[in-house]
Amino acid sequence: MKFCSNCGAPVALKIPPGDTLPRHVCDACHTIHYQNPRMVVGCIPEWEDRILLCRRAIEPRHGLWTVPAGYMENGETTFQGALRETLEEANARVEIDSIYALYNIPHINQVYILFRARLLDLDFRPGAETLEVKLMKEAEIPWEQIAFASVRNTLTRYYEDRKKGEYRFHMGPIEQAPRKT
Amino acid sequence: MKFCSNCGAPVALKIPPGDTLPRHVCDACHTIHYQNPRMVVGCIPEWEDRILLCRRAIEPRHGLWTVPAGYMENGETTFQGALRETLEEANARVEIDSIYALYNIPHINQVYILFRARLLDLDFRPGAETLEVKLMKEAEIPWEQIAFASVRNTLTRYYEDRKKGEYRFHMGPIEQAPRKT
Repeated sequence: MKFCSNCGAPVALKIPPGDTLPRHVCDACHTIHYQNPRMVVGCIPEWEDRILLCRRAIEPRHGLWTVPAGYMENGETTFQGALRETLEEANARVEIDSIYALYNIPHINQVYILFRARLLDLDFRPGAETLEVKLMKEAEIPWEQIAFASVRNTLTRYYEDRKKGEYRFHMGPIEQAPRKT
Repeated sequence: MKFCSNCGAPVALKIPPGDTLPRHVCDACHTIHYQNPRMVVGCIPEWEDRILLCRRAIEPRHGLWTVPAGYMENGETTFQGALRETLEEANARVEIDSIYALYNIPHINQVYILFRARLLDLDFRPGAETLEVKLMKEAEIPWEQIAFASVRNTLTRYYEDRKKGEYRFHMGPIEQAPRKT
């Protein structure tokens, strides 16, 4: 952020009076521009013993697999966001079941919220940001080709829970992957 | 948003190619400025049969009571945000227990995440944004003086759960209050 979105003057990074963190502050109109984490919402669409995965047609992680998920929009609930993303990415209609995972990814300022969901029919096909949509059994999951650690974590917990016969809510941070040198 | 925070040129509200919603787009540098919901994180600090409430020294709802909670910051987890807010608003140290409530407030683009937490000692006092901090039994809760519907909802569920002897995770939308005419 270099300019004030309210008046167009340059902003400076400084700690406002009474605050504890540096913010982008406009010296002309005195607006303080806060920046906060974004939520990514999505679901694990289930059909019998299979789940629906999408292969990404966009960066980051073009060509890799993920569950339907994306940035939550203003004016919607987390439920509505998960339904919308599932429709946009897989043209699939689901009924949201329970919240399944909340993962913090502080190094990229994201919070993932994933639900379990029931696929309502088999009439799905790739959306504009998706190369391929596929229902997979556990043995078919391409573990080495999963796009994000948050999704790989969630699916690992999901199959552990399924074996135990009880789906528990999972929460935790996703650690930053070590940089490749 | 009137100006591009990247280059300072005026922005226009338009639907970018491939998108479905209007965004603030810069015609000069082509930056698309997305706006997303913010998370408010906090906790219900417990001490024996009492909980810690804070009376607000700031707007909105100056003078009304709430649990320690505030906007989640970049670079932190939801847990860390709840701990930080409790320290800032009540100078209180807590150990976070489980996630207790997730409330969507779509008409103001907020998601509330509240945890149950255990107060570690009785050495608390008002922070800069707090007029008064008080440990209260259920009978002392000032229901008519609670600052936010999300907090009133959460505390109502909390005492219902306590009577049943089991705390469940609660989730749902907070409806927009009818405007007073």
